[in-house]
Amino acid sequence: MDMDFAVIDSNRAERTGYPEVVYCAGKTPDQAEAVMIRMREEGIPVLGTRAQRELGERITRRFPEALYDELSGIITIGSVRGNGEAAGLVAVAAAGTSDLPVAVEAAKTAEFLGSRVELIADVGVAGIHRLFKRLEALRKANVVIAVAGMEGALAGVIAGLVSVPVIALPTSVGYGASFGGLSALLGMLTSCAPGISVVNIDNGFGAGYQANLINKLAAESRPQHD
Amino acid sequence: MDMDFAVIDSNRAERTGYPEVVYCAGKTPDQAEAVMIRMREEGIPVLGTRAQRELGERITRRFPEALYDELSGIITIGSVRGNGEAAGLVAVAAAGTSDLPVAVEAAKTAEFLGSRVELIADVGVAGIHRLFKRLEALRKANVVIAVAGMEGALAGVIAGLVSVPVIALPTSVGYGASFGGLSALLGMLTSCAPGISVVNIDNGFGAGYQANLINKLAAESRPQHD
Amino acid sequence: MDMDFAVIDSNRAERTGYPEVVYCAGKTPDQAEAVMIRMREEGIPVLGTRAQRELGERITRRFPEALYDELSGIITIGSVRGNGEAAGLVAVAAAGTSDLPVAVEAAKTAEFLGSRVELIADVGVAGIHRLFKRLEALRKANVVIAVAGMEGALAGVIAGLVSVPVIALPTSVGYGASFGGLSALLGMLTSCAPGISVVNIDNGFGAGYQANLINKLAAESRPQHD
Amino acid sequence: MDMDFAVIDSNRAERTGYPEVVYCAGKTPDQAEAVMIRMREEGIPVLGTRAQRELGERITRRFPEALYDELSGIITIGSVRGNGEAAGLVAVAAAGTSDLPVAVEAAKTAEFLGSRVELIADVGVAGIHRLFKRLEALRKANVVIAVAGMEGALAGVIAGLVSVPVIALPTSVGYGASFGGLSALLGMLTSCAPGISVVNIDNGFGAGYQANLINKLAAESRPQHD
Amino acid sequence: MDMDFAVIDSNRAERTGYPEVVYCAGKTPDQAEAVMIRMREEGIPVLGTRAQRELGERITRRFPEALYDELSGIITIGSVRGNGEAAGLVAVAAAGTSDLPVAVEAAKTAEFLGSRVELIADVGVAGIHRLFKRLEALRKANVVIAVAGMEGALAGVIAGLVSVPVIALPTSVGYGASFGGLSALLGMLTSCAPGISVVNIDNGFGAGYQANLINKLAAESRPQHD
Amino acid sequence: MDMDFAVIDSNRAERTGYPEVVYCAGKTPDQAEAVMIRMREEGIPVLGTRAQRELGERITRRFPEALYDELSGIITIGSVRGNGEAAGLVAVAAAGTSDLPVAVEAAKTAEFLGSRVELIADVGVAGIHRLFKRLEALRKANVVIAVAGMEGALAGVIAGLVSVPVIALPTSVGYGASFGGLSALLGMLTSCAPGISVVNIDNGFGAGYQANLINKLAAESRPQHD
Amino acid sequence: MDMDFAVIDSNRAERTGYPEVVYCAGKTPDQAEAVMIRMREEGIPVLGTRAQRELGERITRRFPEALYDELSGIITIGSVRGNGEAAGLVAVAAAGTSDLPVAVEAAKTAEFLGSRVELIADVGVAGIHRLFKRLEALRKANVVIAVAGMEGALAGVIAGLVSVPVIALPTSVGYGASFGGLSALLGMLTSCAPGISVVNIDNGFGAGYQANLINKLAAESRPQHD
Amino acid sequence: MDMDFAVIDSNRAERTGYPEVVYCAGKTPDQAEAVMIRMREEGIPVLGTRAQRELGERITRRFPEALYDELSGIITIGSVRGNGEAAGLVAVAAAGTSDLPVAVEAAKTAEFLGSRVELIADVGVAGIHRLFKRLEALRKANVVIAVAGMEGALAGVIAGLVSVPVIALPTSVGYGASFGGLSALLGMLTSCAPGISVVNIDNGFGAGYQANLINKLAAESRPQHD
Repeated sequence: MDMDFAVIDSNRAERTGYPEVVYCAGKTPDQAEAVMIRMREEGIPVLGTRAQRELGERITRRFPEALYDELSGIITIGSVRGNGEAAGLVAVAAAGTSDLPVAVEAAKTAEFLGSRVELIADVGVAGIHRLFKRLEALRKANVVIAVAGMEGALAGVIAGLVSVPVIALPTSVGYGASFGGLSALLGMLTSCAPGISVVNIDNGFGAGYQANLINKLAAESRPQHD
Repeated sequence: MDMDFAVIDSNRAERTGYPEVVYCAGKTPDQAEAVMIRMREEGIPVLGTRAQRELGERITRRFPEALYDELSGIITIGSVRGNGEAAGLVAVAAAGTSDLPVAVEAAKTAEFLGSRVELIADVGVAGIHRLFKRLEALRKANVVIAVAGMEGALAGVIAGLVSVPVIALPTSVGYGASFGGLSALLGMLTSCAPGISVVNIDNGFGAGYQANLINKLAAESRPQHD
Repeated sequence: MDMDFAVIDSNRAERTGYPEVVYCAGKTPDQAEAVMIRMREEGIPVLGTRAQRELGERITRRFPEALYDELSGIITIGSVRGNGEAAGLVAVAAAGTSDLPVAVEAAKTAEFLGSRVELIADVGVAGIHRLFKRLEALRKANVVIAVAGMEGALAGVIAGLVSVPVIALPTSVGYGASFGGLSALLGMLTSCAPGISVVNIDNGFGAGYQANLINKLAAESRPQHD
Repeated sequence: MDMDFAVIDSNRAERTGYPEVVYCAGKTPDQAEAVMIRMREEGIPVLGTRAQRELGERITRRFPEALYDELSGIITIGSVRGNGEAAGLVAVAAAGTSDLPVAVEAAKTAEFLGSRVELIADVGVAGIHRLFKRLEALRKANVVIAVAGMEGALAGVIAGLVSVPVIALPTSVGYGASFGGLSALLGMLTSCAPGISVVNIDNGFGAGYQANLINKLAAESRPQHD
Repeated sequence: MDMDFAVIDSNRAERTGYPEVVYCAGKTPDQAEAVMIRMREEGIPVLGTRAQRELGERITRRFPEALYDELSGIITIGSVRGNGEAAGLVAVAAAGTSDLPVAVEAAKTAEFLGSRVELIADVGVAGIHRLFKRLEALRKANVVIAVAGMEGALAGVIAGLVSVPVIALPTSVGYGASFGGLSALLGMLTSCAPGISVVNIDNGFGAGYQANLINKLAAESRPQHD
Repeated sequence: MDMDFAVIDSNRAERTGYPEVVYCAGKTPDQAEAVMIRMREEGIPVLGTRAQRELGERITRRFPEALYDELSGIITIGSVRGNGEAAGLVAVAAAGTSDLPVAVEAAKTAEFLGSRVELIADVGVAGIHRLFKRLEALRKANVVIAVAGMEGALAGVIAGLVSVPVIALPTSVGYGASFGGLSALLGMLTSCAPGISVVNIDNGFGAGYQANLINKLAAESRPQHD
Repeated sequence: MDMDFAVIDSNRAERTGYPEVVYCAGKTPDQAEAVMIRMREEGIPVLGTRAQRELGERITRRFPEALYDELSGIITIGSVRGNGEAAGLVAVAAAGTSDLPVAVEAAKTAEFLGSRVELIADVGVAGIHRLFKRLEALRKANVVIAVAGMEGALAGVIAGLVSVPVIALPTSVGYGASFGGLSALLGMLTSCAPGISVVNIDNGFGAGYQANLINKLAAESRPQHD
Repeated sequence: MDMDFAVIDSNRAERTGYPEVVYCAGKTPDQAEAVMIRMREEGIPVLGTRAQRELGERITRRFPEALYDELSGIITIGSVRGNGEAAGLVAVAAAGTSDLPVAVEAAKTAEFLGSRVELIADVGVAGIHRLFKRLEALRKANVVIAVAGMEGALAGVIAGLVSVPVIALPTSVGYGASFGGLSALLGMLTSCAPGISVVNIDNGFGAGYQANLINKLAAESRPQHD
């Protein structure tokens, strides 16, 4: 039986503009490390997601330029070259403290791919005045990621207040009728505010990736705020 | 085979303070009319819900004091004696035009049972400034019914703005991932704002009944605004 | 990347009448403790829910006036000033022994917020005579919290026997077709007894908070029984 | 292509004690009538379920001894020989008027198969005193069928009050979170009262059949009440 | 706050013919033991279900007549007086080895309550000839419990072969589309063979209890096979 | 806006061995007819599925060689050249009369594609002796399609009796806990008999297509029975 | 009871850059027409979605510049001023003929809001060569809308081939295990290709709106292809 | 109580052509080992699935010819005699690294039963060129097993490219809206490419078994490629 393990999609960058990403939760530490080593040998910048602390420490020991964030489980080795100060802004708005690991995964992904990012925490709709205080920051961004578990109402409220695309990122935070993020997912999908599209529950990487794609389209021409 | 049809729970008012209600959707027009006639014979005020136009017309022809509202399907013959101007206020806030039939069912139920009611329409969270314009009206109420389909976020936003109980009333308005009101129901149940409790999808009657119970407790002492 | 951690909603009390609550299950012990310390510095009474024993012990060591209940995971430091003996009564009726942690969370929440509370255990509908023996106690209350897992029938039976609002609190007690509390939740939502509204599965805090809001409205005028 | 249509299971009675039943909803009127004719030719008593009025009229015109009940959609031609007065009693308790079609399907099925049946209507748990008034009738039966939609709590309450098996029959009566009978089904399956087993939603035939099997086992020896 | 812990339903036996049962999974070992001690003081025979080994050992040390079966988690102290050899037969047919813990829970429950029981293992429908070899044993019983996970087809096949009631007992055995027993549950509820009623997933106790109720009705008159 | 309507996949036959099929339920009669005309112009044999009577009559009027079967909604114009008598046998076993439309869709699809087909009706597991009488016919086939709604047990029972692949075809026949075919689907997916693979609910076309693919592989070498 | 019907959110354009849209399915024809008249009086361009033919004809009779497309149910009166030829391109790729109504809703929405749109039909993944033939067209776009029912795989395949954001638009096309679009929705949410975000089932409007927002960000700077 | 433990279905091979398989996850190590010993005593080749390392080591110590693969949990002792080089080819195509355990279970099952197998890894549709590079290998096979979690699109894409049956094997790989493999399962069931049938989530054994049945039918006549 012939088995061809973990083929790297080396020409992905040519095809889609970005290198492949290493989803560590679906691999043993040995598999994940092997893939990262091969990528570095080919000079590809590495983004690893959902990495446990053991893997994070192993990688930061091996690669001096590697960074590991335990809260989100993000590993980076190098980064995709962005536009520096000229890069547009992605705003990541998180409803509660429990949503932070997923929000940070989104933020660090967008940063790795070349965006400037501002993370705005604790702006859940139950205390909506906190959101309004941060409205100026939200309105500077080319794209907003709205991160929330439970009812997921944050995405709809923000989309009614800004004129740029909102990426809704439901989280599995909550219990009971949250059903592992289902309530937030359904709420975000059915929001009556237009200008929202949704990624999978807890998929911080996917939200950050999509936000960066949009931001990159926007950044080249639009007058940027600091 | 002995069959005992549609026994009236005549001493319900003694036990719970309110007469039985006629859920017309589960009865043939003949059954519904028969029950209403018997109730009137016993001097009980009648509230019928989910009545089709045919039944509504039949009842208003038979009883001069009967009222029928086609939008909500509510029939009333007489009403429970309220406190007149002294009765406290129930606010019914509805997110969109499509939510009105259910919202009106809630409003008319609470009125029938003795509450003063103010219905505030088109205050969905996608245009949240419309909600803020009506904030003063909401804050005069002893209890607020928040009516919304789709994401159901209205309940959580209101509960963060008022200091009285919010009764969340999800509607089956929407399509796709609304799944017949499931998205609104789950969103309202998992709202992170405290001070919310939820009734069944499209159960305007239940929301109005519960709001009136609370309002009645409150009305006897609290300084009332007009 | 700017990250603004755990902003306290200090003016929540002005807006809604009650301070913010600390949901400990969504925070690390360090985060939870930090928030509680900041709240005490601002003189805000603290209610923490779903606290593990480790956090409970840490808090009771630091704050002499802190109380920790392991069964429910409730931490309190101080309390919202209530009306003493004049405060109205909240009755908490629990179907079975397994429902007690959630029932106690509800009871302690309402007490913290200023209500008098009576907890009535083991009154599930499978032995309905036990419920009838406690009917007098139930009827003294301004609001009843009905706590049950499995079929959740307790709420409907009680609502048919009392003239005050019932807050239905489904629990995740059970197995198989309970589906983590779904059976109780659906049963309570679809009860044909009016006068019921429902909170999230296992949301003792939410039920206690809503019951206290209602009780406070009622207490100021209504003749109270002891 | 060889097609063998609607083979009658003629030796079913030998094997299981009862003839096959004609589920009319899954057949065209022509198919249903053809099967009934063939059964009569072989001298087999006929029970048809879920028959529309058109089929009912066609059959009663053709067979003078046929009976058709429009409410439940039951057709009978002849019946299985029972024990007359000596036959034991099956009690059918229905929660509300809307549950009657299904309840009558159960009752007529058990009668056709040889049981005596008493149908007790409008004993839903929201007005539980009505159930208690009929307790004596329930306790005379060898088996009780509890018919309810919405929360389905009736089965659990009855099972706590009698010492015989309860067959729980959920109905699709209701709306919203009833989800077509799912709420009643789950409630009945998870009831904490022992002595309950459940049939499919709206399966009046199945409940009546099972109740008759049990009743027949019991009737031969037990002192019978009228 | 007044808390009334674990009230024993002492007159349950009068009302329903059988004593209360101790569901150990919902109690701490201390709570479970306390209840059992109180029951023994009142002379009530004890059936405990879902007991972990620690509790089982504690109880067998304290009560010499106690028995503990680790596979099913059943504890018994004494038993309900049955009819000895005159008691009718309950057959428990289990589809696979993995279904045995639940099947034994059912068998031991029925034995405790006074029935004779025969357990027939490994008769899943994928090798249906094994079932036919045991047909004679099945046909001697007054009631058959059919235990199966996965597709749950065993109940329907047996109900087509015997003339007595079948209690279908779905188990959570399986993976993937079994969804924790849902596939077996739905299959058993929708079986087209009449003469089946269903209990909750993994509810061996409930199946054994219901089977014993039926068996007891039957046993007093019917000629019994050994 | 450029719109390219209903492109025919003309080289599909080269790629996969079979022409494209016209799913009529997703097209207006005009669209469906237009596609069929274009296919005939290119000399491609036509299989149309889920065609309403109106379309069927229109097509049979236009094409003398067209055939329309109203029960299944199948239209054929010509057929894929098969092996005549040498073609292997596909057996289609249907549980009940209500499953026939879907079973016939499967049978006619396999015939159109070149297989010999035998349809065996009314062999549901509730009367399993009827299945055994037809065992010889089943064992002559190279592949068996098992068609059943409700519990879907037929697939597992057959797979335990034959040595060839079984294609399980769940139908939406049933009510209540059938949930539109979900119960049959889950039952077939979780059957413990190996040698089963499953197609979508009511997908007679898909089952017939897959069976023909397998039959064709087998037919070229295997000694064939008539 | 004061009722404030259908308040127009006139300053929505200032806040979010675009006027409000009229969701006709949730309004009576009279309500929808009234809103459109009021919008025209204020000089706001009108986009109506899900309009039945009757409403479409009424509007086109009243407003000479109104357009109605029956396939998608879209009404437009005027349009938001776009950039003419300078406007960037939105590609709408639809898997099958049945997906066209939703795809056209998306396309017409984006056009109304100022984008150039190219609709590419019949490129489902079952005949993937058809998709490859249109790859050049897809790669000219600033954003791609992928429209598919059933398995929804189109979004993931496209996202692996282009370097711009993909908006995934699941449709309710299909039957059985499609569960009203759920299968496509879940498939799109869980695609392992990054660069996808998803809107509600059948929400062509939402996809077109979001695509236009992104396209507008991009169009101002990026070299555009025709 | 008589208990007949783990009856071996010794004549299964005669009936269906293949011996019984030992599903180890549903048995204690002692039970699994006992069954394997008895099978070896009867000279039956053994396939054990889902075996933990402890059991694997125990068996390889006891039987020198036993093989244990930890990744998939497969134990084999001997094998079913195949056709050696003449045996046809089964191709197993796996979307990602995380799908390998299930893919290898399928591959090793088919090998044990007599097929030649080629495993093709990392050919997910997000990088569809990798799949095309392996197309020649896929087209040599008599049957293809498509293994994928998340969206499950691989099955549909392959079925559009080959002319042999595809067995779709969904895996539980993924998170959030994957719902334990449900998204892949639904996607595979609803694929619009014909020539697909589906097995249970993670059921590598079932896929390998079905593929081998088909391959065996094909191998005897068809010209085989190496």
